[in-house]
Amino acid sequence: MKEIRIIGLTTIPIVRMGDDIAELILDALNRENVALCDGDVILIAQSIVSKAEGAIIDLQNVKVSPFARRIAERLNKDPRIVEVILQESNEIVRMGQGHIITETKHGFVCANSGVDRSNVGNKEKVTTLPKDPDLSAQRIREKIMKKTRKKIAVIITDTTGRPLRVGVIGSAIGVAGIDPLLDKRGSEDLFGYKLRATIIALADELASAAMLMMGEANERIPVVIIRGVNYKVDENASAKKLIMPREKDLFR
Amino acid sequence: MKEIRIIGLTTIPIVRMGDDIAELILDALNRENVALCDGDVILIAQSIVSKAEGAIIDLQNVKVSPFARRIAERLNKDPRIVEVILQESNEIVRMGQGHIITETKHGFVCANSGVDRSNVGNKEKVTTLPKDPDLSAQRIREKIMKKTRKKIAVIITDTTGRPLRVGVIGSAIGVAGIDPLLDKRGSEDLFGYKLRATIIALADELASAAMLMMGEANERIPVVIIRGVNYKVDENASAKKLIMPREKDLFR
Repeated sequence: MKEIRIIGLTTIPIVRMGDDIAELILDALNRENVALCDGDVILIAQSIVSKAEGAIIDLQNVKVSPFARRIAERLNKDPRIVEVILQESNEIVRMGQGHIITETKHGFVCANSGVDRSNVGNKEKVTTLPKDPDLSAQRIREKIMKKTRKKIAVIITDTTGRPLRVGVIGSAIGVAGIDPLLDKRGSEDLFGYKLRATIIALADELASAAMLMMGEANERIPVVIIRGVNYKVDENASAKKLIMPREKDLFR
Repeated sequence: MKEIRIIGLTTIPIVRMGDDIAELILDALNRENVALCDGDVILIAQSIVSKAEGAIIDLQNVKVSPFARRIAERLNKDPRIVEVILQESNEIVRMGQGHIITETKHGFVCANSGVDRSNVGNKEKVTTLPKDPDLSAQRIREKIMKKTRKKIAVIITDTTGRPLRVGVIGSAIGVAGIDPLLDKRGSEDLFGYKLRATIIALADELASAAMLMMGEANERIPVVIIRGVNYKVDENASAKKLIMPREKDLFR
């Protein structure tokens, strides 16, 4: 019997602009008597990172372009939110069924450029994705490692829909200290037959595992620790490795 | 602090045609001193279910059609495997970059119709997906519940690539006793604001969490128990709820 543990921190307070996420995590660990171990992966919901970093837009200050207004009418959305979605995107990848799928400025393809109205505490405000989620993860990782002297990894998670399948799952938008991909090419199977094309999206699997704990309807558990997973430490990791290059994508 | 546990069974033997997966799991639980609890979800790798059910094809007996031969040449694949892929599919969804993405007879969209050459122990044999993975899950569930008197759920997992992102993750192809979707619409967020469109693909998240334990390069841990997750018991569950209806899919 082998075991992996998914540990959810239940005492992270409601996060506000300017809060130090690393400090909030260290406090919660203390309060809840959880000691970090070498190899732990800390997964943090994007929403609290965005709020701490002030990635919040007041809809009352948004100037709506004619194009955003036209799309908003067609999709029956708030034109100010559509304007923010467009501003956060490189391009529109798909539109229809009430959805706008965009490529964000980071290169992620997701619904609404990751712009989110929930969990902000004010219907006139929305959160956007952190400007540089890898950097956000890296800063949090450094601070926690310095204070605890434990070798850990950090992943910023988001909740995303996907083509072909119903429902949202977790995905990684920022990573630090962990190679988001686990390359098994060249490994052997059970009978010594060489595997040909298996690269595992480890950081996305970790994000989905964390989502089992985080839930979605509220943010009461925005920080999760996963203990017992093998991964390759990478000091220059980036979640951008998880983005399928456009020219290789059969569905884009 | 809250906890979810991912427990991997390490003593499941190499599975052969005709083996009773439920019995193999019960034996391993015994041997490894793991007692099931009400609410446990047992996740089982598709490959061992296919092998137990004899969903294995001897490539030496495959009659290759001219169309399969043409595709095989174009993609530089074994024409006999291409023939099996076509026979297992309803249609080809995408082709290129050395890949054939099909809709399987069950309706799943995946690479190679789920036909797999690894872990069979014979390079001249391939596994196909179980004929009715929900039914496979249901049978295993009934037997384990009868013997242990614990209320559990069963998920058959596969490893699949996906559009837009690099790398494979876990996904559910058969379920029993668990609603694969967790519908959060109408729930409230942290501040009492009603969430609009959140359906979580819980069974896929569980499959990805199990994959953290199962790994991929070998089958040494083909059975995983996840303990501590909330789900809706559904006696008539089907993994087909996870398939995006074609007319709603912006990427198909």
